[in-house]
Formats: sequence, C-alpha cells, structure tokens
Amino acid sequence: MTARPESPYPMLPVPEALEVVLAQAHPLPAQTVPLAQALGHILAADVVAREPLPPFPASVKDGYAVVAADGPGDYPVVGEVTAGRVADFRLSPGTVAYITTGAPLPPGADAVVMVEETERLPTDDGTPRVRIHARVKPGDDVRPVGVDVAAGQQVLAAGEYIGPAEVGLLATAGVTQVPVYPRPRVAVLSTGDELVEPDQPLGPGQIRDSNRAMLLAAVAANGGIPVDLGIAGDSQEALEAGVQRGLAEADILLSSGGVSMGELDLIKPLLEHAGTVHFGRIHMKPGKPLTFATAQVAGRKKLIFGLPGNPVSSLVTFYLMAVPAMRQMAGWPNPHLPRVQAHLAQPLPLDAHRPEYHRATLRWEPSLNQGRGGFLATSTGSQASSRLLSMRTANALLELPQRAGRLEAGDVVTALLIGPLG
Amino acid sequence: MTARPESPYPMLPVPEALEVVLAQAHPLPAQTVPLAQALGHILAADVVAREPLPPFPASVKDGYAVVAADGPGDYPVVGEVTAGRVADFRLSPGTVAYITTGAPLPPGADAVVMVEETERLPTDDGTPRVRIHARVKPGDDVRPVGVDVAAGQQVLAAGEYIGPAEVGLLATAGVTQVPVYPRPRVAVLSTGDELVEPDQPLGPGQIRDSNRAMLLAAVAANGGIPVDLGIAGDSQEALEAGVQRGLAEADILLSSGGVSMGELDLIKPLLEHAGTVHFGRIHMKPGKPLTFATAQVAGRKKLIFGLPGNPVSSLVTFYLMAVPAMRQMAGWPNPHLPRVQAHLAQPLPLDAHRPEYHRATLRWEPSLNQGRGGFLATSTGSQASSRLLSMRTANALLELPQRAGRLEAGDVVTALLIGPLG
Repeated sequence: MTARPESPYPMLPVPEALEVVLAQAHPLPAQTVPLAQALGHILAADVVAREPLPPFPASVKDGYAVVAADGPGDYPVVGEVTAGRVADFRLSPGTVAYITTGAPLPPGADAVVMVEETERLPTDDGTPRVRIHARVKPGDDVRPVGVDVAAGQQVLAAGEYIGPAEVGLLATAGVTQVPVYPRPRVAVLSTGDELVEPDQPLGPGQIRDSNRAMLLAAVAANGGIPVDLGIAGDSQEALEAGVQRGLAEADILLSSGGVSMGELDLIKPLLEHAGTVHFGRIHMKPGKPLTFATAQVAGRKKLIFGLPGNPVSSLVTFYLMAVPAMRQMAGWPNPHLPRVQAHLAQPLPLDAHRPEYHRATLRWEPSLNQGRGGFLATSTGSQASSRLLSMRTANALLELPQRAGRLEAGDVVTALLIGPLG
Repeated sequence: MTARPESPYPMLPVPEALEVVLAQAHPLPAQTVPLAQALGHILAADVVAREPLPPFPASVKDGYAVVAADGPGDYPVVGEVTAGRVADFRLSPGTVAYITTGAPLPPGADAVVMVEETERLPTDDGTPRVRIHARVKPGDDVRPVGVDVAAGQQVLAAGEYIGPAEVGLLATAGVTQVPVYPRPRVAVLSTGDELVEPDQPLGPGQIRDSNRAMLLAAVAANGGIPVDLGIAGDSQEALEAGVQRGLAEADILLSSGGVSMGELDLIKPLLEHAGTVHFGRIHMKPGKPLTFATAQVAGRKKLIFGLPGNPVSSLVTFYLMAVPAMRQMAGWPNPHLPRVQAHLAQPLPLDAHRPEYHRATLRWEPSLNQGRGGFLATSTGSQASSRLLSMRTANALLELPQRAGRLEAGDVVTALLIGPLG
C-alpha cells in the first residue's frame, strides 16, 4: 500500500463528456426484420408506395352507385358490389347499383348516394327499384384512386421512428421485411465482493445487488436488449472474464461499482488495457466517478461505461450518457433525452461546487403560465446518492446550476425526461 | 334488402363514452411475476423493507477508519476492511484501519478519513503507519445503519408504476417474486372480404390489411399483450369464430371494419348476441362508428371494441377508448392519456358538427410563454380519416372544439399524448 495521487483523470463537464461519448457511438449496421418486430426501431431506408391507395375508386358509404347527372328519381337496381368484389357489369345512365363501403365503384358510375338518402320501392317484375332523394355531384362519396397515397409516393423516410401508425403504413405499402437499425445489445456486470443476489439472505457485511436488476430494466425500458453478466467479485480474473464476455456478446458494456479511488478499483486499469479510456471523471452531482472507454472487438467498436456503485449515481449517469449512446447506435437522428422547462413546486438548495441532476416528478399543471399550462416539478426528497428512494416515481432530472444559495418555488429550470409523464 | 332506419344507437359524446368504458374495465386479478419481468407493471401490494439499508455502518470513502476524538497525527494501521468482509478486530483509540468504500466500519471506529487526507509513512518494524491530516467528527464519511432505508419502511406502495428505479428498490428489499397486475391480453381481428395480408399481391378490388399490424403494434406499445386473430371474411361464421376465439383467449377484443351502416355490418348483431352493447356511435371526428360491448366468458368480463375500418378512425378510437381501458385493467390508478396544452404552429379549421381529434406532432419550444417554454403543435396535414399518413410522426391528438370557423396560429389547445416526445 502506498499513498496515491489525485485521480489522473480530468473532471469533464457533462456536455463535453456527452460529446465525447456520442463521437464514439455509431449507428449499428442496418438489418431487415419482419414487420411484426419493426415497432420501436428506426427505419434505415425510405419506403415508397408501389401502388396507389385506394387502388380503385372506392365507395365511402353504403348506398347506391349512380350516374350523378341522372339526379333524383326512381331507378332500377341492376347489380350489387360489395367490398372485395368487382362489378361484372357496366352502369348505364338511368340505372343504379347497390354498393357497400370500401367496394370498387362499377364502371360507368361516378358517384355514390348514401343509403339514408334513398328508399326501396315495391317491385312486381322481380327487378328491385329504389327512389333516390339526393342530388349528388360526380365524385361525391367516392375516394378516387391514390387520394390517400399516390403510386410512387414516399410514405416513410429513413431515420423515422416506427410507431404503430408507421407499422400500418409499412403494411399498406406491402413492406413486410423492414430495413431498420437494430437495437443495441447492452450487457450489465455488477462488481463487488459485498454483493449478493437479491433472493439470497444477507451475511455480515453484505448488501443485495440492486444495480444489476435496475440497469437491466433501464436498458429494456430505453430500447436496448439487456444481457445479464451476473456479479463479478473484486478479483482481477472474475472482472476480466465478465468484461471479455460483455465485449463479445454486446455492443455496450455497463459495469457498476469499482470505479472510485480504492485499491480494489480494478475496472479502470482493466479498461486501459482492453481499449481506450476517454474519460474517468465527470463534473456533476451525483455520479462523479464515471469511466467511459471503447474497445475494438472483432472489427466492431464496443462502448464501455464504468458506472459508479451508488445506485442513484449509476442510474443517473446511465440516463445522461448511456441512453443517448444507445439511441445513436439504434439510428435515432436526435439521440438526446427530451429537454423541457419546469416550474419548481418548492425551493431547492444548490451545490456551489457541482451542477446537480435533481430527481423530480413532473406533471402538467394547466393553471401555470396564466392558464396556458406548464410542467410542475416536485422533488423526490433527500438527494443522497445512495438513496435509491430519490429515484422512486421520478420521471425527470432537473438541471440545477452550480452555484451557492437556492432556487425558489416557481423558479423555472430545465429538465431531462427519463420516464413517462403521469 | 329493405330500407333501413337511422342507426338505433345514440351518438355519445367522447367523455361520456369513456366513462361508460371505464365503468366496465376492472383491474385484472393480481399475479406474482419474477423480478426480471416486473418492469412496466403496476405493483399490486405495498413493499416493506425487512432489513435496514445499509445493514451495517458503511464507509463512504476509501481511507482510514478512525476514532474521531484522536484527531490529526501519526497512527499505526492495525488492520484492513474491504467491502464484503467484516473486521476481525476492534479498533482501539490511537490506532486506525484501512477501509474501502462500502465496507463495514470496524467496531470501535466512529469516522472515516478519506485517503486523500492521509499520507503513508515509512515503517521499520513491519507495522504500517499513516499520517492523518484531517480533523473529523464522529459519523464523518460513514453511512449509518438504515440511513437510506429503515427496517420496516415502506419502499413502494400498491398502485405505483414499476420503472427501472422501482426494480432496483424491489431488489434492494429482496423482493424477487413481485405482486403485480398483469398486462391485459388484447386480441385483434380484421374483418372484410376486401382485405389481403400485407405480403400478398393485390387482386382486383382488394386492399392490404394495414389495421391489424398497426393495432397489434399499438397494443404492444401501450403495455398490452397482442393476440393476432387474423382476417375474418364478411361471413357470419368466420366472424363469429374470430370473436369467440378472441373472447376465449384475451381480456379485450378489438375488431376493425364492419361497423358502419352496411348490410354486411355483422359485428353489431353478433355482439348484441354475445353480450351487451353499451354504445354504437360516438360524437367525434374521426371515428364516429365505434361499438363498445362486454361479454361474460367463463366468469370473467371481456371488453369488445368494434373499431371503424378506416385506419385513422381505428387508431384514434383505440387511443381514446381502448388505451384507458387497458391501463385500468393493468391497475393504473390514473388510466387517462396524459393531457397537456400546446400552442398551434399554424391556423386550423374547426368542424361545426363534431369535436375533432386533430393529429399533430408536439415538440418543446423553449421560447414560448416569454421564455418559460411550452409545447408547439404542428399539424400532420390533411386529416382525412382514410389517410394514415396523418398519423405519421404524430405524438398527440389535439382536442379541437366543435364550432364554426378556425383557430389561429399561437392559440392554445389541449392535447392528448399518444407517443413519445421527440
């Protein structure tokens, strides 16, 4: 044991650290996935409609296909067209045909009169007859060919997020094998001899490993594919095995614990050996000891985040640094967490030495901004970095400036959204 | 074929229809799921910590465990405690012990001096010695027992949403079998002889079934478990088989198509036969012909939504009615879509006859509200109910009032959030 110097890593401001991370995170090679698995991905190529929609002039209503020029009057019903069928006849002036919503207009017809504007008449010769009450114009209650989508029209562009509506548009265009950027695989490794699995009884000096379950959930909640690497004890061999497995199986490796200044901080030397350490400390509260490294494995660049062991520091730095990296690898054109402004519900103390990411619950309050509405931010209470309860119900990180004093209730701060709005 | 009367179903206003739906949607019976599957569920029971956290007085830093009253000076290092180990010695006044972050304080010690405030001294008798520079108080750099979580403290309450932090809290409390409300299973059935699977070539009079893929994705995106019932043609038998399978396998059945006034509208009579139809029309644009029914199947109440065939009407009514029902069944205390206010980016025409749910993309604009920020709503363009492109990139439904005229750019409207903020 020898006395150690200050950490050799400079303390990077958060925006600068994020730039360093994003400069290393590149979209993963595009893949093709079946339509049923496309939800939540970013589209990797433009999608163009091959056929127009509708592909035929389609009735908007149930009623009668007519020649508009005929006008109101009594007419023989010479046929019937239902959706999915095509007429085997041509409509002549002076005749009408029964038609259902979505059915192709028979040739010769140019409008539809909805059934509510008609009346069936008694018939004696077997040919049904109908009284048309309404006067219609050509095109009335008909969707022309291509009115919703023209043939050759771009219906989706590369870089767009595939939500439910976009899945519908892909189906409409007949694209059932979808070019997308894959979700990044994110492996999570816990380190520390004091950790036991959550379902095990606690021995002396032991605590449960909460970070791994939490980070695996956070990966899934943010569009990644979680890979569980288990707990590595504080031995060089166990750690190295975990890191190597993570680098082989995943695009991003998250380790938590083992990154402060202790003698058992084996992660940093290991990362220096395995690849390039880009930074080792970050100027923020909580979460100062965050290490970011990259390694080339089988021709692919892997990202490694050595997250702090404190659960809050670990999750906050995950959101600030790893989520934007995950999004960039998943092809998001804007990888940043959504940033909004919020009115403080109570005074908050500031930290004179570090900018703070204060956990809060945002809800929309219609009476703010003279009735035009705004977000009200309620603190989750004590912000100790070991107190995971400070993340309970939190859906935002308030960006508090580094200075002495405090902010007052009603003051407006910026907030990064990390969870759904309630 | 006979002339038919106006629809027998009264036209319900949206808020009233939603009340009717929510009165029929009850939380599903609670289940226990493994911790790794708890994400995204609502907790069905309070969670209380059995042990305090930390369970022992823990060092916050790497450094030396000391007796604070000793003060600065040179001391022998009589032992070492690392995380996961417990001291096999008691610290006497006038001695110190090396300690790492997270390790239990040895008995006799009452504070920690961080390593940066110390200096290793040369030794000649084999006992390491250290110079302590800092004066500390009892408790300095020590996390007392239970400071983060007290034994017996409630760490989570029934009704709370389980996000990543809550997964971490469950792990901390050792709860690896988690009582939750299950996600509802939601079956989707398309109806219509004109529909073909998206990967099939279009024959005359045919269109691709986009609604089913879209609704299955929307179910998944909103926390449900999708069940694909395929396409039923417009025959009573095919429809009935689809409905029966949906009611047997799912908690909610969504059918799309076949609910307007046509002769082939077989869904409503079928639902009247299978259960109770609560309403058949809804006073809104788009999506007027929405049918809502319930049926008792094997002692459980199933919900049935007969969605319109137009893709936009179908998806909009899904968000307005089915998502709150799904959330209520999944145990959400507040099942409603988040409602915010937004400033219009452009003028919008109003409908004099129906309130309209106008599709728009919301983004945060920091300059609004005199620099305190607000949402800016950009219309997705033509709002024809057959034009699914009007849902592309939309993350909100603007609630436009029923009246003549138009709204101007800058006017503030309420908006329901249906997708992630960009």
